[in-house]
Amino acid sequence: MMATKLYGHPLLVPTRRVALCLEEKGLQYEFVLVDLSTGQQKKEPFISINPFGQVPALEDGELKLFESRAITQYIAHAYPDMGEPLVPKDPYKMAIVSVWTEVGSQRFEVVAYKLIYELVIKPKLGKVTNHGVVDQHQEKLAPVLDIYETRLSISKYLGGDEFSLADLHHIPIVYDLLGTEIKALFDARPKVSAWCDDILARPSWQKVVQAMQI
Amino acid sequence: MMATKLYGHPLLVPTRRVALCLEEKGLQYEFVLVDLSTGQQKKEPFISINPFGQVPALEDGELKLFESRAITQYIAHAYPDMGEPLVPKDPYKMAIVSVWTEVGSQRFEVVAYKLIYELVIKPKLGKVTNHGVVDQHQEKLAPVLDIYETRLSISKYLGGDEFSLADLHHIPIVYDLLGTEIKALFDARPKVSAWCDDILARPSWQKVVQAMQI
Repeated sequence: MMATKLYGHPLLVPTRRVALCLEEKGLQYEFVLVDLSTGQQKKEPFISINPFGQVPALEDGELKLFESRAITQYIAHAYPDMGEPLVPKDPYKMAIVSVWTEVGSQRFEVVAYKLIYELVIKPKLGKVTNHGVVDQHQEKLAPVLDIYETRLSISKYLGGDEFSLADLHHIPIVYDLLGTEIKALFDARPKVSAWCDDILARPSWQKVVQAMQI
Repeated sequence: MMATKLYGHPLLVPTRRVALCLEEKGLQYEFVLVDLSTGQQKKEPFISINPFGQVPALEDGELKLFESRAITQYIAHAYPDMGEPLVPKDPYKMAIVSVWTEVGSQRFEVVAYKLIYELVIKPKLGKVTNHGVVDQHQEKLAPVLDIYETRLSISKYLGGDEFSLADLHHIPIVYDLLGTEIKALFDARPKVSAWCDDILARPSWQKVVQAMQI
């Protein structure tokens, strides 16, 4: 069998998310750095894997996948008995994980990405942070975190009592945001804050941080 | 067993999407109209089902779900042997469906929603369409449809040779867009155009159009 290859860039949340999922399953993989500064992701051979020209992508044998959430879904379903289950087999429990995975994607991440771009990516690229955009998205993130606080008061993790993809998808985002002024929003909510400590302490994430020198 | 209840509004794509999925599975359900004009979705008892205060939501016995894509995932996984499968059991085939479901969500829908808001929703609410926004998003949609054209040249449906959730999620969006000037973008691409004809002709969608008087 051919080796599993992850194509991506360590600076970006979606790449780290897939690496994290592979680590949770204890899967061996080769990391292939895609040079975004020269637009390698928009050229062959990468564009043949992802016609949208964005990282990450995964090659697992003959299977070629893109879109980070689709890749983690695949890993969770293709390797159910390795490492952490990540997706429950019971359709009722799976449904709750799906709800909170979608919440993460549609409510949390859309706002968080704007904050990460302004407060983490721009400074690294030598660009100037737009504090108006930061304030605006900080205001949008607060009510989402209020709902997370309520949710995490009734279940240990977002998708239920077990760690799942719903939590995993948040880890690289939370990691970035806690290194910025946005940390105050998390600190002000005890359940959210404890959940952040818990998920960031996972050995899988420690390995990603070390391997990718984040 | 308690009846399945779909809470939503017929004007909105996500509500229609869930109704369509229930029809594909041949499931009986009660449609509960949520009066958005009085902000019913932001109040009890609805807010206890979806803390984000948005339709649709689904009650299936004791299970309460929200986020349309999570609901269709649940229906597909909970009723695998009824009606159309919608999600393949084989993890390799399922992975391809996941990729194109994510593409629909992250690349197509984000742009399409802006067009639907300007060209379908605003006129219904007596508001004025912003043609600058339309032009801008038309330009964004074109390259996405080019990628769809290539994809649909090598497989009959987005997620493979069988109709799946990846296609289903597009139906209410395509239906709305084909009633606007954006139709020209679809007509210019023969594979995309044939795919639209095919998926819109499904009896499940005809039932939704009739039942919801769209």
